[in-house]
Amino acid sequence: VQSRPPAEIGAPLEAIETPALVVELDALERNMVRMARFASAAGVRLRPHAKTHKCPAIALKQIAHGAVGQCVQTVGEAEALVKGGVTDVLVTNEVVGTGKLRRLAALASEASVGLCFDHPDQVDAASQAARDAGVTLRALVEIDVGMERCGVQPGAAARDLAQRIAEAPNLAFEGLQAYHGSAQHFESHSAREQAIDRAVAAVSRTLEAFQAAGLPCETVGGAGTGTFQFEARSGVYNEIQVGSYIFMDTEYARLEDGEGKRFRTFEHSLFVLSSVLSVPAADRAIVDAGWKSYSGERGYPWVHGSDGIEVVGVSDEHGKLRLGADTPRLRLGGKVALIPGHCDPTVNLHDWFIGLRNGRVEELWPITARGASR
Amino acid sequence: VQSRPPAEIGAPLEAIETPALVVELDALERNMVRMARFASAAGVRLRPHAKTHKCPAIALKQIAHGAVGQCVQTVGEAEALVKGGVTDVLVTNEVVGTGKLRRLAALASEASVGLCFDHPDQVDAASQAARDAGVTLRALVEIDVGMERCGVQPGAAARDLAQRIAEAPNLAFEGLQAYHGSAQHFESHSAREQAIDRAVAAVSRTLEAFQAAGLPCETVGGAGTGTFQFEARSGVYNEIQVGSYIFMDTEYARLEDGEGKRFRTFEHSLFVLSSVLSVPAADRAIVDAGWKSYSGERGYPWVHGSDGIEVVGVSDEHGKLRLGADTPRLRLGGKVALIPGHCDPTVNLHDWFIGLRNGRVEELWPITARGASR
Repeated sequence: VQSRPPAEIGAPLEAIETPALVVELDALERNMVRMARFASAAGVRLRPHAKTHKCPAIALKQIAHGAVGQCVQTVGEAEALVKGGVTDVLVTNEVVGTGKLRRLAALASEASVGLCFDHPDQVDAASQAARDAGVTLRALVEIDVGMERCGVQPGAAARDLAQRIAEAPNLAFEGLQAYHGSAQHFESHSAREQAIDRAVAAVSRTLEAFQAAGLPCETVGGAGTGTFQFEARSGVYNEIQVGSYIFMDTEYARLEDGEGKRFRTFEHSLFVLSSVLSVPAADRAIVDAGWKSYSGERGYPWVHGSDGIEVVGVSDEHGKLRLGADTPRLRLGGKVALIPGHCDPTVNLHDWFIGLRNGRVEELWPITARGASR
Repeated sequence: VQSRPPAEIGAPLEAIETPALVVELDALERNMVRMARFASAAGVRLRPHAKTHKCPAIALKQIAHGAVGQCVQTVGEAEALVKGGVTDVLVTNEVVGTGKLRRLAALASEASVGLCFDHPDQVDAASQAARDAGVTLRALVEIDVGMERCGVQPGAAARDLAQRIAEAPNLAFEGLQAYHGSAQHFESHSAREQAIDRAVAAVSRTLEAFQAAGLPCETVGGAGTGTFQFEARSGVYNEIQVGSYIFMDTEYARLEDGEGKRFRTFEHSLFVLSSVLSVPAADRAIVDAGWKSYSGERGYPWVHGSDGIEVVGVSDEHGKLRLGADTPRLRLGGKVALIPGHCDPTVNLHDWFIGLRNGRVEELWPITARGASR
């Protein structure tokens, strides 16, 4: 159960109570089609990441566009998706603690469920939880391909952990999780490409160790919106786990493409809609959306569709706009759409997506995994 | 209705499912007592800001400690507090839009409700909404005392708006809202003091204009955790609207006090409890709390109670810790308490406060205004 939605189906944009999270459905759908066509042409499976949208309605739309299932980052996200009708989820993360493992194992009686490992103790604990629940969990070894976050080292260490998984009751060894998170955000195209070249080398070395040990490896997954082209053409990755491509944000819009231009493969479809709360000076307007409506770790949001207006300050519930000399003064109550710096944590602040088409509310999608960080 | 709480009453800290928002009750209560004693000794009313905690249980505790009511920033916060038993709320912000004004007026039949104004159109709209609901709303003029956010200019402009309010049916002119938000975070004590000196001059000039016009001014409100001493001794402010003092965060902990030392008037009582998810190297551990569990606009959180461990990277669901050479390796599942950079938007990410005393869960308080940004 969630807060009251900020609009009614059929209402015009002007009637949306703000701040609110809006999605332009035409742009969202074009982004989905573009990525689905890319994956199909490249011959890789598409398993989009639900950490971005946290919403079963969007997950099912991605699956209708050819995705094989969903990635999640937490057990709570997996629960929300399965409850919403998704039948194949992969936790692209370690799961530590008996309580969480039991919850995940319980889900595996309703859906195909996988998770990642980087420590032998986790293998024993997950095997026990799966055995207790009478289910089988898909199991991937996470290797560190350059991000220095979780993951075992490529090669022999990964092989040893895979062996342990292969021998553990009620775990089915499936393959490798080889995501390079930090590479997604290198602005330079060649820096992203080189990082993934190194990741591919690490994967290849690990696959050789698997082969020498007679371990079959069905899946090699990874990639994000900043690098998916490189993983897809690598010949070793066969599943891409992109998330942000459906929405975009200012961080991804800052990337350079191969021609040194801004990354424009996908369109901005996600906006925080705000209203003008105060017009205290000719060159200043204050809107009602601040750090509680979009996340701040990537800086101020951009104003959508207006070259003459810039966000120059943000506090918890306010955004301060500076208007250019030729920009008409804003009116009290007028709507301003903001492009968030970072889409995933921004979505996590809201209970509803308002799907807009031609300026009217067409969909109200509850973000049922909002706050599902456990 | 909210998500399942991450712990049960009576459980030890180790049994809390993470990430979770925990409050050390002893520290929280000492902070409340300190501020209540200060306000009482200074002869100013204490009206703490609920934008910080978003929780009726904490609001009622502050009122039990002598607060006259609560400040809120949105109509949704006011609704949550009144529903939770608070009978006096002031929206320290403008309220724009018929829908929001109607909701606020509806509340005024259950509680004493005030709001702020910086434009004549707002006065007419609020008066109409109050008349339609058959209630009276308390009304304050917000003046810009240096933050350059909302607010009319001090002096004649404020007087003219106050006149308009005084003549508007169903609005009761109460006084001035004169908050200097940016001054709260100037690290230097003297910079904060000088900013409030200028705010006091602006208030005094406005009060003279009110007096000349025969307008009584019952309330002059403002102040935050960084500056309240200065407003309280000013002789013109009579209500302080502090919020963060109950919790503290790294941003407030960075301030200098009058002796050039770190600001230690209040204790850290708010922590994001995390668990170790991965121990991939001797000098590195990864915890399960990232940008979806604490807000990022003030940088990385601090590790509580451990000098040898530092947060060196954060992603959406992960925190990367670097361990000093002499720091014992962390174990999988071990708990790490993080001090958030900025308490208000961090609280807004969670559904529950877990109140801890002597390492046991004593309270589970729902954060009913979480996400109430409208």
